[in-house]
Amino acid sequence: MSGDNEKPESKKAAKKEQKKAEKAAKKAEHKVVENKPVEQKDDVSVGKYGVLPLITSEYKIDRQYSNIGNLNKEYAKRVVWVRARFQTARARGKQCFIVMRQREHTIQVLVNVSESISKEMVKFASNISKESIVDIEGTVASVPSEIAGCTQSDVELIASQLWVVSSSDPQLPLQIDDASRPEKPEDTEGLNIRVKQDTRLDNRILDLRTATNQAIFKLEAGVCRLFREILTEKNFTEIHTPKIIPAASEGGANVFTVSYFKGSAYLAQSPQLYKQMAIAADFDRVFTIGAVFRAEDSNTHRHLTEFVGLDLEMAFLHHYHEVVSVIGELFTSIFKGLQDQFKAEIETVCQQYPVEPFTFLQPPLILHFNEGRKMLAEVGVEIGPEEDLNTPAEKLLGKLVKAKFDTDFYILDKYPLAVRPFYTMPDPKDPISSNSYDMFMRGEEILSGAQRIHDPKLLTERANHHGIDIGKIQSYIDAFKYGCPPHAGGGIGLERVVMLYLGLDNIRKTSMFPRDPKRITP
Amino acid sequence: MSGDNEKPESKKAAKKEQKKAEKAAKKAEHKVVENKPVEQKDDVSVGKYGVLPLITSEYKIDRQYSNIGNLNKEYAKRVVWVRARFQTARARGKQCFIVMRQREHTIQVLVNVSESISKEMVKFASNISKESIVDIEGTVASVPSEIAGCTQSDVELIASQLWVVSSSDPQLPLQIDDASRPEKPEDTEGLNIRVKQDTRLDNRILDLRTATNQAIFKLEAGVCRLFREILTEKNFTEIHTPKIIPAASEGGANVFTVSYFKGSAYLAQSPQLYKQMAIAADFDRVFTIGAVFRAEDSNTHRHLTEFVGLDLEMAFLHHYHEVVSVIGELFTSIFKGLQDQFKAEIETVCQQYPVEPFTFLQPPLILHFNEGRKMLAEVGVEIGPEEDLNTPAEKLLGKLVKAKFDTDFYILDKYPLAVRPFYTMPDPKDPISSNSYDMFMRGEEILSGAQRIHDPKLLTERANHHGIDIGKIQSYIDAFKYGCPPHAGGGIGLERVVMLYLGLDNIRKTSMFPRDPKRITP
Repeated sequence: MSGDNEKPESKKAAKKEQKKAEKAAKKAEHKVVENKPVEQKDDVSVGKYGVLPLITSEYKIDRQYSNIGNLNKEYAKRVVWVRARFQTARARGKQCFIVMRQREHTIQVLVNVSESISKEMVKFASNISKESIVDIEGTVASVPSEIAGCTQSDVELIASQLWVVSSSDPQLPLQIDDASRPEKPEDTEGLNIRVKQDTRLDNRILDLRTATNQAIFKLEAGVCRLFREILTEKNFTEIHTPKIIPAASEGGANVFTVSYFKGSAYLAQSPQLYKQMAIAADFDRVFTIGAVFRAEDSNTHRHLTEFVGLDLEMAFLHHYHEVVSVIGELFTSIFKGLQDQFKAEIETVCQQYPVEPFTFLQPPLILHFNEGRKMLAEVGVEIGPEEDLNTPAEKLLGKLVKAKFDTDFYILDKYPLAVRPFYTMPDPKDPISSNSYDMFMRGEEILSGAQRIHDPKLLTERANHHGIDIGKIQSYIDAFKYGCPPHAGGGIGLERVVMLYLGLDNIRKTSMFPRDPKRITP
Repeated sequence: MSGDNEKPESKKAAKKEQKKAEKAAKKAEHKVVENKPVEQKDDVSVGKYGVLPLITSEYKIDRQYSNIGNLNKEYAKRVVWVRARFQTARARGKQCFIVMRQREHTIQVLVNVSESISKEMVKFASNISKESIVDIEGTVASVPSEIAGCTQSDVELIASQLWVVSSSDPQLPLQIDDASRPEKPEDTEGLNIRVKQDTRLDNRILDLRTATNQAIFKLEAGVCRLFREILTEKNFTEIHTPKIIPAASEGGANVFTVSYFKGSAYLAQSPQLYKQMAIAADFDRVFTIGAVFRAEDSNTHRHLTEFVGLDLEMAFLHHYHEVVSVIGELFTSIFKGLQDQFKAEIETVCQQYPVEPFTFLQPPLILHFNEGRKMLAEVGVEIGPEEDLNTPAEKLLGKLVKAKFDTDFYILDKYPLAVRPFYTMPDPKDPISSNSYDMFMRGEEILSGAQRIHDPKLLTERANHHGIDIGKIQSYIDAFKYGCPPHAGGGIGLERVVMLYLGLDNIRKTSMFPRDPKRITP
């Protein structure tokens, strides 16, 4: 990664000097050396290509760089610098065609033997290892016919300088092309190489460079931003809740244990207690985004042991439907925001993983649990009045709802009391029902929520009913001792929302560094 | 918490019925009963006061509520409903003066015996336990002279209805008044009751209800929002990094161990590796806000075992000062944003904890480490050229900088290589220096950052130099194998920024539920 710093006078001397320099370089590797290329006698391109020394902030260089995504015919004939990935090179006689990539954008670069470009320079260009980062100076040129396979299809760059900034190992564990290949139904014969999920995750740094992954995580950031903006607009306050907790607040199963100095602690399965405490402490409406942990040995397409929770909790005046409507609006506003602000990203993902566009109603559909049961019964699936929906029933109901109401998002209200946590407010009119709800996208649950019991006596009663050791949850119960407004809320799994919005098949596609029972690397 | 549901015809019968009802209520506690008060014969206020049954969302009531903070003379003669905390009551003959509190706002409520308000109702009002949540219907009335001790000083409410929504236990472990008392230098005799930090934290739900705490956490949410808005504007992408990690990335000390199914894992001390991987994966500029964990047995005013990290990482072109200037601008923009958008909150906090307003320069002051050493040497404190600043030296330098430059924020650049982590880029021109920096507020460190080594060979060399077992950090090193742009970044402790901006003396004041070696509750 370092050039020579000698000026040989003959080819032989040059070789000798080069060897000497290489030796010296090996010794003093990464000591900053001068910015000069490997030289050849009669090389007219000397000083215009090579491997830059490691950038250690030795120099401040006043040079404008362009973004590949901005280059088009309007830039024709202008000389620009770009710093980008060397994606591929194809040498053909005295020419080398390079594709340079900058995130989701690509451009063709032509290195062409000429008065000022030597054969050596063309050869050097064609030998750069894929995925290296390269600085190129070139003239933008309009092309007579569209360049296939580059996002910038109406221009190319005619290179005048070419410098390797950071070399990649020539052996790549996966090819970006393979990792970017569309999954189309007609490709079932498997003639095209695809990259397996585990290979992708083992080499996540490379995998994340695909246009699709760039788009997925841009959109994921967008979901968080929209969530916060919409709730801030509705007077919610952002809070931060501890992940290290003294006891398993939600019953005790599925928690990770942490060694805490001479004692033990646990990793929070949700910010439940803390956001409720914030309500009891007069914050009125709160949200929090943070890691939540589930020590469940579930190896499915939609479970992670650590994920990002988008949680909210809200005091209401008289009826928890005040909260349901805020959450419903939140979702439709997020969906609209994604549609409006992430059109390009959605298209990019859809090109690799084709799916029907996400549909939703405004205001969203709210279905009573018993209506859901009835719809399922009509197609022969019986769910008891105090029974939860299992995953296949959820998916089926999602399809029935989609067929009947043309929406991929809906709210299922009034779950049976028996299948909800002890802190769920019972329905005052129907003893087997509760003031609780789940929300679904493409038939999969993405939010679970309820009115919480805000009265210590009823809470104790319900905990006893569930056989919970009161001693272990006393601090939870005490949180409501000094007056607490009625409140409801919910928790959303970020990765699930993104997976289902984009219609992806695996939650590992929407977690940058996923954690499951079998994976805690990288 | 439930009223009666019988209509007795005589006083005796009434008592009998009441006992019966109480018995029934005890059995069926929290079953919803009708919305009726304890009744007395000849009570003209029947149906206008009492304890509401538990709000279980049985009814949707179409009633507008007002925010106390909005009530002023413009509302005079209007009848409004408010739901707020019952802060204090003072009965005086046929009158009861109540102070109702809604977060940072308070208003006086008068319950006055009249044609429609009974003695019983006034008595009921004066007996409500402090901190209960109460619905009041009343007429807004201008007052001839300012009401001291209420934020709404030019109006009061003349109550016409009064309903307890959620009763507080009458025994409060701390009084909101005590917890809100200003800490003024002249009060050193300790005549006024103050609430100790531990009592506050043990009863955080009550403590957080003070106007000061409401303001602190509103401002803290503001810091996060500004951080994100400013960086999003500068094309940063938000990412989420795992907290559960396979190995201690930063050397191994001070990490918490987690039981992970049949194996072990660790809690991340910072998102360092992951944000760098995002850079190697072409995200160019990233930030992340999340919990970071330090298993340090430090019991100081500024250490927590779990805190909120505001982290950022950014690829640059030629010199890490490109990044330093982005971070510097980030801070001055945050400070300006707080000044502009949180004036009221800053004043509120300052009333309880007086402090000089925070000062800063634009652009911020960047001091070379050796200049800092020189300033310290001038006042007799010698720091060696390869030595770190200890905490007293940092604080002293902060004072010297403030005196000389009138700024509470500055950047100290070019720390000695020897005192920085192995992955810090050495200074190419000075072998004992490095491309690293800390940033300070009121003389305390709030950000540590550097140019990172983006070359696997140099990284290995430096790790070896630090005596680090290469096997344990191989995946970190490999992250740079496939081409990586030069990059730099930093990590900010959210609670420290808020503590120091507001000039508070303890980081536990700016963590909603702080964690330290001795506290993991509530």
